[in-house]
Amino acid sequence: MNLNSPGSVFVVGGAKSGKSSLAQSLAEKSGKRPVYVATAQAWDQEMEVRIKRHQMDRGPAWSTLEESVNLKDALLGIDHRDKVLLVDCLTLWLSNLMTLENLDDEEILTKCRELSDVIPRLEAKVILVANEVGMGIVPENALARRYRDLAGGLNQLMGRTCEQAILVSAGIPLVLKGPALF
Amino acid sequence: MNLNSPGSVFVVGGAKSGKSSLAQSLAEKSGKRPVYVATAQAWDQEMEVRIKRHQMDRGPAWSTLEESVNLKDALLGIDHRDKVLLVDCLTLWLSNLMTLENLDDEEILTKCRELSDVIPRLEAKVILVANEVGMGIVPENALARRYRDLAGGLNQLMGRTCEQAILVSAGIPLVLKGPALF
Amino acid sequence: MNLNSPGSVFVVGGAKSGKSSLAQSLAEKSGKRPVYVATAQAWDQEMEVRIKRHQMDRGPAWSTLEESVNLKDALLGIDHRDKVLLVDCLTLWLSNLMTLENLDDEEILTKCRELSDVIPRLEAKVILVANEVGMGIVPENALARRYRDLAGGLNQLMGRTCEQAILVSAGIPLVLKGPALF
Repeated sequence: MNLNSPGSVFVVGGAKSGKSSLAQSLAEKSGKRPVYVATAQAWDQEMEVRIKRHQMDRGPAWSTLEESVNLKDALLGIDHRDKVLLVDCLTLWLSNLMTLENLDDEEILTKCRELSDVIPRLEAKVILVANEVGMGIVPENALARRYRDLAGGLNQLMGRTCEQAILVSAGIPLVLKGPALF
Repeated sequence: MNLNSPGSVFVVGGAKSGKSSLAQSLAEKSGKRPVYVATAQAWDQEMEVRIKRHQMDRGPAWSTLEESVNLKDALLGIDHRDKVLLVDCLTLWLSNLMTLENLDDEEILTKCRELSDVIPRLEAKVILVANEVGMGIVPENALARRYRDLAGGLNQLMGRTCEQAILVSAGIPLVLKGPALF
Repeated sequence: MNLNSPGSVFVVGGAKSGKSSLAQSLAEKSGKRPVYVATAQAWDQEMEVRIKRHQMDRGPAWSTLEESVNLKDALLGIDHRDKVLLVDCLTLWLSNLMTLENLDDEEILTKCRELSDVIPRLEAKVILVANEVGMGIVPENALARRYRDLAGGLNQLMGRTCEQAILVSAGIPLVLKGPALF
């Protein structure tokens, strides 16, 4: 492990905090060929607009892989040589496991652990983005509470697994763990 | 005060951020006998499951004291010799004051100040856990807004009172005030 | 630019996190004459109580300017000599642009960029306060989601523009960018 270039990075932040931009910038500065692993599915117009906007933000150097559910297999299936994989984002993936796949908590925890186990074994550098969703009022809705708890657990797992963890607020990165950024 | 072992620690973080685990680990590393001061009341099944899970997470070294309302008296009533008291959590205690005790804002502020006044006088080391609940959208519900404001005020008070304050995100502690952790 | 006295400061934090108190304290310690630029409009009793409480918190050294919409012109229109301008807060201003002025996203982004362009050109020191609103669960309400996205974008812009950026939790400042506080 090169201290200034950790093999795995976890970027967590609020909505529109600049976490994806930061992750993209880290990927581009890595000197490796960037692969965008998109977990989003365009199931409504609002989502479609967001996805399009994000695609335009990235340049032609990027290749894209869409995988909303089988993230572990998708990551293992990529040719890793000289690559940096940006997974954006885990919170949406979690939401897909809950709503598209209808998995229960135990099944979701298994998926999360499988993903976490794979990260240190990837030859490519990997950057994973997730939302901080637990710093508001307890949601009235039971599904939202379940989602919030699972997202918090997933973020903890990623915080433990990755060599570097970064919290983003107002577009500014705050290193929680691992080497300083600049 | 031993700089590396502050007498009072405030741990704040989002839901499922790992704040309770961190607090437990700090208590266990203190070399003192840990007392878990639980503010939770099991008023529904969801809550009961959470409480049970948390009890299983703690080992047999821990003793437990349940007190959902009279926190100041509970803390004063414990034999403090060689003890570390973990109060988990203040946000639930606040919620109990509002909903079980029906206290108004003035009465709640008095309770918070009384608790805060007692902390520096405790012979035992004390670790207090609370939720960050103010970083989401303004709640539509007036009670939730009142709760959010009171929780923010309580967190400020604890941040001022305690010798060390720690923010937790993705399971990773970020020292806001006081000595570094490692 | 004096490294220990940045010309522009962005303070972001949750509800009742102590961000306004911190901003006021920074303004008072600057040695300049403080001007409070209030973006709040008292449209209901809850708001009126908040505004009154905040006014009482500030001392007689402060002058006050109320401007809920045309923030850029208000800032340019002040006599800047020996002044420090405290804008409290940008999140409410954004909300005013959305609900009082009915501006669309493009118009709001233009207003935000105009404000941001003006900040480095002000002769006075300027401190801008905003809410972190993106770290809770995705709101069910489409207007709240739009607000959350715009607020995140505005916070990023301010984080880039200002010489110093500070995140506040539990009343404790955490410098994200620029010179340390103490």
